[in-house]
Amino acid sequence: MLAVVNCSQVVTLGGARRPRVGAEISEIYIIEGGARVVRGGRVEKVGTRVEIEPLIDSDCEVVDAGARVVLPGFVDAHAHPVFAGTRADEYEERARGATYQEIAARGGGIRSTVRRTREATLDDLVRAGKRYAEWILRTGTTTVEAKSGYGLTTEDELKILRAVRRLNEETPLQFVPTFLGAHDMPDEYRSRREEYIKLLTEEMLPRVAAERLAEYCDAFCEERVFTLDESRKILEAARSLGLGLRLHADQLTLSGGAHLAAELRAATADHLEHTDTSGIKALKAAGVQPVLLPGSVYALGSSRYPQAREMIENGLAVVLATDFNPGSSPTPSVPMILSLASTHMKMTPAESLTAATINAAYSLGRGNEVGSIEEGKRADFVIHDCMDYREVAYFFGVEHAHEVFVGGRRVFRRDRPANIQDNG
Amino acid sequence: MLAVVNCSQVVTLGGARRPRVGAEISEIYIIEGGARVVRGGRVEKVGTRVEIEPLIDSDCEVVDAGARVVLPGFVDAHAHPVFAGTRADEYEERARGATYQEIAARGGGIRSTVRRTREATLDDLVRAGKRYAEWILRTGTTTVEAKSGYGLTTEDELKILRAVRRLNEETPLQFVPTFLGAHDMPDEYRSRREEYIKLLTEEMLPRVAAERLAEYCDAFCEERVFTLDESRKILEAARSLGLGLRLHADQLTLSGGAHLAAELRAATADHLEHTDTSGIKALKAAGVQPVLLPGSVYALGSSRYPQAREMIENGLAVVLATDFNPGSSPTPSVPMILSLASTHMKMTPAESLTAATINAAYSLGRGNEVGSIEEGKRADFVIHDCMDYREVAYFFGVEHAHEVFVGGRRVFRRDRPANIQDNG
Repeated sequence: MLAVVNCSQVVTLGGARRPRVGAEISEIYIIEGGARVVRGGRVEKVGTRVEIEPLIDSDCEVVDAGARVVLPGFVDAHAHPVFAGTRADEYEERARGATYQEIAARGGGIRSTVRRTREATLDDLVRAGKRYAEWILRTGTTTVEAKSGYGLTTEDELKILRAVRRLNEETPLQFVPTFLGAHDMPDEYRSRREEYIKLLTEEMLPRVAAERLAEYCDAFCEERVFTLDESRKILEAARSLGLGLRLHADQLTLSGGAHLAAELRAATADHLEHTDTSGIKALKAAGVQPVLLPGSVYALGSSRYPQAREMIENGLAVVLATDFNPGSSPTPSVPMILSLASTHMKMTPAESLTAATINAAYSLGRGNEVGSIEEGKRADFVIHDCMDYREVAYFFGVEHAHEVFVGGRRVFRRDRPANIQDNG
Repeated sequence: MLAVVNCSQVVTLGGARRPRVGAEISEIYIIEGGARVVRGGRVEKVGTRVEIEPLIDSDCEVVDAGARVVLPGFVDAHAHPVFAGTRADEYEERARGATYQEIAARGGGIRSTVRRTREATLDDLVRAGKRYAEWILRTGTTTVEAKSGYGLTTEDELKILRAVRRLNEETPLQFVPTFLGAHDMPDEYRSRREEYIKLLTEEMLPRVAAERLAEYCDAFCEERVFTLDESRKILEAARSLGLGLRLHADQLTLSGGAHLAAELRAATADHLEHTDTSGIKALKAAGVQPVLLPGSVYALGSSRYPQAREMIENGLAVVLATDFNPGSSPTPSVPMILSLASTHMKMTPAESLTAATINAAYSLGRGNEVGSIEEGKRADFVIHDCMDYREVAYFFGVEHAHEVFVGGRRVFRRDRPANIQDNG
């Protein structure tokens, strides 16, 4: 049993048990001076100190939050955290003026990570993944989606998903696996696209489903990557095998991705930088959640952010995620994404926080399990070294997570630099 | 005595003992598998392992860098790290659509921090400053400029500079103090501007100089803040008292600030978002270094970054700095600034690193002391948890500093989350 006391704020994100939109967020359930009790890895009670006190028994571990903020662990609903190598060389090329598209055309981009990931062993991928899992936890995230998509052969895609399974077992971070064999057309199939679609639908997907290696299937829908028809075929095959659906839609051009996600009643349509009003209305009508990824807009040097305000005004329960990947969004940090959302997309701090916790949890089918600090939910929460929840994104570029708990167990605690403390 | 071995790269920034421009940076002196020896807080020798080995004696502490990158400590040449309170409320107001100027017009902005800083005691400011000093060190900076400017009365400005002096004594971070009494026109002098200029030049500056509380004097030159004539008067008075000169120039409008900095042969002209070609040429002719502050462009939601490439092409030794402050740039992180410079200002990783180390050191009159890892210089260096120096900014929003050394003494070491390590 664990009790957390002396919190400056507990931002519970509790309330209606469904994803939330704009005005509903004006009240985000801040308990000032709040406290909470955890038993058996689940939240037993959230309330004021006075309400909690009677539940604290003699063998209870009492955690003093030191007048800091407590938030639910962030839920990062779009990430590609298992890959080999980095693309720091392309980062330099882009600083020298090359565009992402030019780099891709000469064999860089996703294909360069595919080459390195194919060469890597399962152990190599797990080792690299642990480095990123550490960063993800350290920045306050406790649940992360993990897409395959850097293998593009049956064995290499399965290798990535097996690495995700091992990371789920061997680290405290909770992973939700997504099959993204349709991330790019592999070089060897460029002149015979239909064969790759067949490989995806008749070999890869059945194996992924049989080994229960993924909960969702995703596809990169873009005229020059997978067309609307190709994407539809892939996602329909996935659905028939029992997988949930997600879609990379309208990132580089307005290609009809949002409409396809609506037609298929996918769980999410992701990116949406070019989606217009008609696409937004289609998502709303079909109950599809938009997953916005401002980290990739930033890192590609663009300023064309998705239309978050129009989506909120149309009643969509927006999700924010990192898109963590080695090319277009090399950040594992949800707070960085919250900063981008408030400074460049006019989402309020409360809207952004909701988008990266409870709304994200619903988009991954875990709305009843994580994303808020509520009775009965898994006790995944983070003590941030701030007095006010808004500071977590306001002071950007620095890590605020002070202690991270998953299932009521402390998995990270930040040490202060000795020399600062000694003299303080 | 200390030896650092098993580095993947030692990026020394050594070479010509002067600030550096564009093409000169193509060679940034990377020693692969490098090692180094420190004695008496100074760098004794930098070289390959074979060159270093004979210098390692029996009582030498050997630091294994674990195949990580070693960089000089960053030098942050423009920062306002001593203030009371935060402005997270204004961060929310701006997300809701208010502009920085609107917030300032209704008593927010700098004036709101001034009110809180006036109410704070010296101890309050030192306590808050230590929190930020920790962040600054943790993100890999070992020398930081610290401006006053949130007091705007003689006693409150002196209080801030005394807090800087105490932070310099009580933390391992090295501070360079700058007097910025001309940061804003205080409310009580709005109808009698000349009296405030007189207070600055005849009372504040002489006291600051007499108590040796600052090395530099700065002014916020902008038509609606301090005019060209007012700024000139203030800086001339400062110069006659032996202070070096810096200037907030052309941030919000093209007001002639760059030309004034050139006329006065200031050490630096800072911001320069609106500076044109004529201003750039004037800075070059006068030997003034530009200090670029993309953090404030980003945090204000703008995309009008200063013309770094044109400055480099005109032969200027560009400096990059955080502008860390609670309003327009709430980031203490130099790596975040390097990311902005490469993704949004087309500075290469090598140019950006040079701008935030050796060039910054020269701009603060410390080019012979810090900013590079060279024989005889103070041993301020950082082991970053990366294989390649470019990763420090490429993977943005996460802290990479693994161990931080100031004067050869370890002042920070990051612990890995226990559960990740145990299972790894």
